[in-house]
Amino acid sequence: MSPIPSGIPTAGDGLRRRVARLVVVRASGHLADGQRRYPRWELDNASLQRLLASGVGGVILLGGSAAELSLRTRQLQSWAEEPLLFCADVEEGVGQRFEGASWLVPPLAVGRIHADDPDAALDLAERYGRCTGREARQLGLNWVLGPVCDVNNNPANPVINVRAWGEAAASAGALAAAFTRGAQAEGVLCCAKHFPGHGDTSSDSHLELPLLPHRRERLETIELPPFRAAIAAGVASVMTAHLLLPELDPERPATLSAAVLSNLLRGELGFEGLVVTDALVMEAIAGQYGAGEAAVMALEAGADLVLMPADADAAIDAIVAAVQEGRLTEARLEASLERRQQALARIVAPADPGSPGAPLGSLSNGPASADQDLALELVQRSLEHRGHGLPPAVSGTNLIRLDSSLGCPFLPALAPAIELPAAAGYRPVLLDCRSPSAWTNEPEAPLALDRLDPGPVLLQLFVRGNPFRGSADGLEAWPSLIRQLLAADRLAGLTVLGSPYLWQALRPLLPPDLPAAYSPGQMPLAQQEVLRALGLGGTARAGDFTD
Amino acid sequence: MSPIPSGIPTAGDGLRRRVARLVVVRASGHLADGQRRYPRWELDNASLQRLLASGVGGVILLGGSAAELSLRTRQLQSWAEEPLLFCADVEEGVGQRFEGASWLVPPLAVGRIHADDPDAALDLAERYGRCTGREARQLGLNWVLGPVCDVNNNPANPVINVRAWGEAAASAGALAAAFTRGAQAEGVLCCAKHFPGHGDTSSDSHLELPLLPHRRERLETIELPPFRAAIAAGVASVMTAHLLLPELDPERPATLSAAVLSNLLRGELGFEGLVVTDALVMEAIAGQYGAGEAAVMALEAGADLVLMPADADAAIDAIVAAVQEGRLTEARLEASLERRQQALARIVAPADPGSPGAPLGSLSNGPASADQDLALELVQRSLEHRGHGLPPAVSGTNLIRLDSSLGCPFLPALAPAIELPAAAGYRPVLLDCRSPSAWTNEPEAPLALDRLDPGPVLLQLFVRGNPFRGSADGLEAWPSLIRQLLAADRLAGLTVLGSPYLWQALRPLLPPDLPAAYSPGQMPLAQQEVLRALGLGGTARAGDFTD
Repeated sequence: MSPIPSGIPTAGDGLRRRVARLVVVRASGHLADGQRRYPRWELDNASLQRLLASGVGGVILLGGSAAELSLRTRQLQSWAEEPLLFCADVEEGVGQRFEGASWLVPPLAVGRIHADDPDAALDLAERYGRCTGREARQLGLNWVLGPVCDVNNNPANPVINVRAWGEAAASAGALAAAFTRGAQAEGVLCCAKHFPGHGDTSSDSHLELPLLPHRRERLETIELPPFRAAIAAGVASVMTAHLLLPELDPERPATLSAAVLSNLLRGELGFEGLVVTDALVMEAIAGQYGAGEAAVMALEAGADLVLMPADADAAIDAIVAAVQEGRLTEARLEASLERRQQALARIVAPADPGSPGAPLGSLSNGPASADQDLALELVQRSLEHRGHGLPPAVSGTNLIRLDSSLGCPFLPALAPAIELPAAAGYRPVLLDCRSPSAWTNEPEAPLALDRLDPGPVLLQLFVRGNPFRGSADGLEAWPSLIRQLLAADRLAGLTVLGSPYLWQALRPLLPPDLPAAYSPGQMPLAQQEVLRALGLGGTARAGDFTD
Repeated sequence: MSPIPSGIPTAGDGLRRRVARLVVVRASGHLADGQRRYPRWELDNASLQRLLASGVGGVILLGGSAAELSLRTRQLQSWAEEPLLFCADVEEGVGQRFEGASWLVPPLAVGRIHADDPDAALDLAERYGRCTGREARQLGLNWVLGPVCDVNNNPANPVINVRAWGEAAASAGALAAAFTRGAQAEGVLCCAKHFPGHGDTSSDSHLELPLLPHRRERLETIELPPFRAAIAAGVASVMTAHLLLPELDPERPATLSAAVLSNLLRGELGFEGLVVTDALVMEAIAGQYGAGEAAVMALEAGADLVLMPADADAAIDAIVAAVQEGRLTEARLEASLERRQQALARIVAPADPGSPGAPLGSLSNGPASADQDLALELVQRSLEHRGHGLPPAVSGTNLIRLDSSLGCPFLPALAPAIELPAAAGYRPVLLDCRSPSAWTNEPEAPLALDRLDPGPVLLQLFVRGNPFRGSADGLEAWPSLIRQLLAADRLAGLTVLGSPYLWQALRPLLPPDLPAAYSPGQMPLAQQEVLRALGLGGTARAGDFTD
């Protein structure tokens, strides 16, 4: 808790307010404390109100619908005396996080189009940015935490995967730049991340500190070009990575390293915009250095803003003390404040402020028609399919693998992945982290077939590299399962939604005429198109009308 | 589609607008068409805008958060020229349907308190009404579709169950009246339902027409007293039941019966307020009579408003034609319009209109403190428990039965029912309508124990009589399962959340010291208190901070 009473300006208070502006705290996009999905990480309203009144300058938001977010950003702004930065990880469209806005296929889908048709991919990436920037701004966000500039050249990467714009440096850079131009033209700030490159890691920086053993020449070839491209495109901010690059700094992770942030990013790459840390609360930083010291070290290293410190008051107090002790100079502090001010000056208010009849302006009835077209075009262009139509079934099973069915944003009860197969006779069975076991102990026949209905099986795999969850577990013997179902003459079709690497691994196992399709997206629109490619479609079953 | 161009008043148009005022259409509480959970039942925005502009006078809402609903009601009102009726089935608090408001234990919990402590129960029922009325009004609703006045004297009833205020006529009536006084004192209308009594039915009127074979004397004893009590308390409206009472009308269901609505309700019971049908789209009505004819028959019988006709335009056109043909008189139409006007005149605007910093007024940070206290008091007073504390486990299983884990409002990923047992070593396994089978074919050993971890089992049953879902299925051999787990020395504890009848059936099977608890509520607060009664509590595991 701050020991300084609010509303009484003093010299110390003035310094504390200026320092507080450099801190970005985490809030739920829901209005009420009781609606928070992650109460350990999302500050309660009393804390937010106090911190914003004391000068905290930014908020990162997660959760809630587009409608709720629009009220929430106004609410949070009303608790502050100066304009706030409002950011969110809307890397895959605003609808990825806030229902009611556009949810687009992950960027890697565009990266793959780029290989065949670079002009089309660049156009799609810029429209992707336009859509994201415009919708973000409409809901009160002014800072899009994208593009991911990491080159996903390691399929085992658990945190980047389809979030990257490419698997090669050139396409990732060109597309990230196009996205940046599109989004920033709509009046929001973008953020190139995670500097100097998080694509070639196979451990999860949310849990431990990954190590990037590459030499400087290799960084010049793979990791740095997308950041150079985004900077050339005028990206307003860069986010640091929590990873260790012994070649550049044998001791400190990039987030806390002057060699990485000051020498490389500011010096060699000439970046003059805002440098923001990744979430300091992540174990790789908070566990090692503590909330206050980590924030001071980040500023010392060259960061301007500190994101999600484990304790905002401790971070502010530690930075204040560092300035008072001369560890950080006033000039250093002023430079960061000035860069923040310049970034704020680039932000444009939405053209369309909303009204009772259209409270979210152009988003009041969901995405604009052009953005719906973009979402569909992205799904259709990135879809892969083969084989013939899925046959109608009697006693068929629609075996769906997903991480968690609780609060699953892409699988409402009437999702196409459930409804369309049901209409063709495939009853849904969901395998998730809380299902009763459907598995045997036999590696070559892993599924207990007697626990399913006797008919054909449509296998649908929602898998992507997710932080915290790992990319696979011992039960996910998908190749064995496919061989088992084929041997039993029970495999009717396969869909993969998410990881292209899983699709690539499974596709060769299939007979050429077996209906199968892949989309990088997992959202209902991707489900609909994937199943349409398998010959399912038309009218979905209507559900119960109330309960 | 209406053949009459909007904005050009004609004599026919004038009649059509007046008729349209008597129609209540269904809308999602979400802003965008794409967010609708039940698109077959929830009109799209273009249809809503057209119908409201053409004079449709009411909307029933379902889905969306409290924040979204507050924008939605303003949006819908802006599309109409005259004040609208906004109603919702918020029988168990506004938070039952709209997250962010108070979610209270079902009314039957209060009915059971009434048996022991009638004064306390009456006080709770009135506060229940106050809370519901105030929160409804704050979000733009002005018509609470409660209290249920059905006497739940048939435990097999699939649609009423815990929604009723009592299992006996006297307590149901007294409590329904207290709820009505409380809610209407906050400036909303209430609705006593489902006239003349839906408590003693064992089939689901959503799917077929139930028959109530009772003689008139029996109706006087059981079914009618709660309606008399609500009417005496000044209830503004009464909703009709879709069921057949051969004693009163051998041909027509109550909703369409002049004997029931005009003779009994208006005549004998002297009700002078609004009579509204239950949803005409229900199969028992729409399937039999068609959208237009059902609406005409309801008005002929004595209803004032028609709720959710299967086709609003067809209903309006049919009523217009019936007036033009003299089947319905102008006087009859005017009487209903006059009653609607009088009801509207009773509605009070919320005291607290909202601001950017508090967009939902007193609901901006969730329920007011007094309402949170009420919610907790209701849970605590209706909780039953026995036995000792649940022992910590190694490899324990938390076996949770629920209808559906997809979009489940009471089971977010960090719900107490999952987190609290996990902290004590019980890993969650969810059994729902889409789980892989956990069952054997042996009636006396129904659960395949080898599909669970080897340790003790905490069994948690979320079961209540739900429309469409039935109250049980062949797999729900809970008594056998409990005997099986006891025989294997694997049953560590039992919770039942929902139906008191299931709890009553299972309780005698338990050894006296086995930890077990029951709540009529299923929401997170009920889970927390039920598990606290089993000795679990303290800090829930914190979840991942992002994905």
